Amino acid sequence: MTARIREVVVTPVAFPDPPLLNSAGVHQPWALRAIVELRCGDGLIGLGETYGDAPHLELLRGVGPTLVGLDPFDTNGLWRRVGRALGGVDAPDRHGLTGGSSPQKTALRVFSPFEVACLDLQGHLIGRPVADLLGGRVRDRVPFSAYLFYKWAAHPPADGPASLVGGLPPAGDPYPEALDPAGIVEQARLMIAQYGFGSIKLKGGVFPPGEEIAAIRALREAFPELPLRLDPNAAWSVATSIRVAEETEGLLEYLEDPTPGIAGMAEVAEAAPMPLATNMCVVSPADIPPGFTQEAVGVVLSDHHYWGGLRRSAELAAMCRTWGVGVSMHSNSHLGISLAAMTQLGAALPELTYAADTHTPWQCGVDVLDRPLPITGGAVTVPDAPGLGVALDRDALARLHENYLRCAIRERDDTSYRRIFEPGYTRRRPRW
Amino acid sequence: MTARIREVVVTPVAFPDPPLLNSAGVHQPWALRAIVELRCGDGLIGLGETYGDAPHLELLRGVGPTLVGLDPFDTNGLWRRVGRALGGVDAPDRHGLTGGSSPQKTALRVFSPFEVACLDLQGHLIGRPVADLLGGRVRDRVPFSAYLFYKWAAHPPADGPASLVGGLPPAGDPYPEALDPAGIVEQARLMIAQYGFGSIKLKGGVFPPGEEIAAIRALREAFPELPLRLDPNAAWSVATSIRVAEETEGLLEYLEDPTPGIAGMAEVAEAAPMPLATNMCVVSPADIPPGFTQEAVGVVLSDHHYWGGLRRSAELAAMCRTWGVGVSMHSNSHLGISLAAMTQLGAALPELTYAADTHTPWQCGVDVLDRPLPITGGAVTVPDAPGLGVALDRDALARLHENYLRCAIRERDDTSYRRIFEPGYTRRRPRW
Ligand SMILES: [Mg+2]
Ligand SMILES: [Mg+2]
Repeated sequence: MTARIREVVVTPVAFPDPPLLNSAGVHQPWALRAIVELRCGDGLIGLGETYGDAPHLELLRGVGPTLVGLDPFDTNGLWRRVGRALGGVDAPDRHGLTGGSSPQKTALRVFSPFEVACLDLQGHLIGRPVADLLGGRVRDRVPFSAYLFYKWAAHPPADGPASLVGGLPPAGDPYPEALDPAGIVEQARLMIAQYGFGSIKLKGGVFPPGEEIAAIRALREAFPELPLRLDPNAAWSVATSIRVAEETEGLLEYLEDPTPGIAGMAEVAEAAPMPLATNMCVVSPADIPPGFTQEAVGVVLSDHHYWGGLRRSAELAAMCRTWGVGVSMHSNSHLGISLAAMTQLGAALPELTYAADTHTPWQCGVDVLDRPLPITGGAVTVPDAPGLGVALDRDALARLHENYLRCAIRERDDTSYRRIFEPGYTRRRPRW
Repeated sequence: MTARIREVVVTPVAFPDPPLLNSAGVHQPWALRAIVELRCGDGLIGLGETYGDAPHLELLRGVGPTLVGLDPFDTNGLWRRVGRALGGVDAPDRHGLTGGSSPQKTALRVFSPFEVACLDLQGHLIGRPVADLLGGRVRDRVPFSAYLFYKWAAHPPADGPASLVGGLPPAGDPYPEALDPAGIVEQARLMIAQYGFGSIKLKGGVFPPGEEIAAIRALREAFPELPLRLDPNAAWSVATSIRVAEETEGLLEYLEDPTPGIAGMAEVAEAAPMPLATNMCVVSPADIPPGFTQEAVGVVLSDHHYWGGLRRSAELAAMCRTWGVGVSMHSNSHLGISLAAMTQLGAALPELTYAADTHTPWQCGVDVLDRPLPITGGAVTVPDAPGLGVALDRDALARLHENYLRCAIRERDDTSYRRIFEPGYTRRRPRW
């Protein structure tokens, strides 16, 4: 039952990402992640997955060696070691989809993959799934939602710097162009046919609100029974948000981040007929008191990657329970370790009452795992195997790491990438 | 690593309690507790301890049989089973030192000893102390405070009903009468000489505030270095509380529950120079939003017996951390299983920044354990043994259960017991 961390390996990887549109621009041809391994010897390895942007990677690599000797059960000790290694640094998240930066947020973000890997190790040591370390599973299948994006058919030939374009030929994806309601409905049909999703989220903030409302109406007509969500990533003013909320009354299970900031969200929430959800204005412990007191949101999208791992995400869920706020789950582009972690957490959280977001379909089967957990019938079956229930495919990891080495992208920048094709493009929040 | 609960045994016990005075009256000659055993066969037993009052005992006994077959790692399942067995019952806590009742509070109170026993089982199954299941120990020794009471020299000969007096000869205790500052200082000297406590709490609300302030001044003079606390159990009006707070400026690390209710506490908190602490106005999840939003308290005294066990107490600590509220620990009369549970929790909570309360010295060595965890140098050393780190002494348990059977007390009632000696005595909050 005992083991010590002997070696920490952080491997950056890159994998093809389709040209998905959002309020910040468009996804670059390659997405970055970092795979964290905590190795204890005798083949005992704990896995974590996190962002792969260069500044974050540098922090991970600075922390890694300081974890040697740590007992995987000592996640309090892990927190102290991470804190000491970071020394209070405030590393801005330039991507900016999760609000401003702070030393606290930096620490939680860096802590997360190591905490997940420690829980994976604990599970292996005691022969139990991670969900059992979080209170036991309350569901055997964790539902995920179809995550629809407006998208281009393919990445256009780009005459831009390799640091934005990647320098490698972008891969194709099976989803056709989607720039109008019909395209979105077609995308939903394809995705639901393959994965069986039982709820739908549309990433908005790309076209004027009227067009996105039309897409929601088209989805409602095509899928009369499925809960729908719309997430414009704070692209709208308070007035626009209230107007859209009124026009979509009865259509949405929640409206996600219509407008920037807690004060604005609170104003919209007061008028909106549906709950507001967020992964932009309540994104760290410091946001919870003002966010909850001002009743800015009815649903928080938890995300263990920036809330500080699985146990702190469970704490967030407990706070939501205490304040009568719902819990859903946020996703960025990710691979199968993150999906497994989300599944273990989702299995153990009574408070998770919404299907979780996932970008899994957009990764088109690319992964670092031996046998990724499949999404079938719109859900992932919680594995009975110990720990996270997944194992690395070393060859696949090597290939994705090779991608990383050959791809020149080192930080996500949707806005600059889009500007290659539309020189006048700017990121504005609110835009409408 | 697997086991199932085969049998649930709930054993009520009674043990001698000295005549300790508080704002509700005086402790009866016998205190009640219930010892919970979750038996999995092959000698594998998980221990919990909780209140022994008859209505609570009835609920425990109703829940017990429904837990057969449960996996000790499935505390989410435990919560569901407890909820089903209780069926939403609202069992008032007549003792009333932890606020009004609700179905939620009832469920948390009944759930608690079973959750602790499940964690004890988990620890035994994986060969780890319970603290490791809560994130690992942040301290090897958990500090406790000297808990001083005004008291009579001994229980007087009582001509009252056996249901109040017990019907058994009350035991003596080594602490002399303490009804004035000199008596309190003498009590502190005796208790600190034996246990080495590094901080002091005085249970007040017994004499007019001026006399209790004088006792605090006497303690400050006798123990210039030790942090002091005063807890009148809501015996004072807002105006009196503010006056006492001003007069004790610089003397107290916190002032505990000077006045009833969140609104009153908030008014006092705004004027008081020291933090206010509570185990009376923020005592359930439902109290947290109003309590924290109104800034009624600077410190919450957690108590796993009514907050729903160790993991939910850790959630409470996380909420306190998030709102910038301090964490201390509350105690009623208890035995060594509770002390062990408090120690394991205290070992794993970074947020616990105050020495915890304990009534242990007042139990004068009586216990149900083979080897109770000793308090030395004012702290309990966290045991390295698996689970809670304690085991039952079956003979001692039988003796204390025999006490229970022979003693006619079935519910704690400090007020009625005191009225035997002072017929005009009433419980009033506020009294001054
Ligand atoms: Mg979002
Ligand atoms: Mg108190």
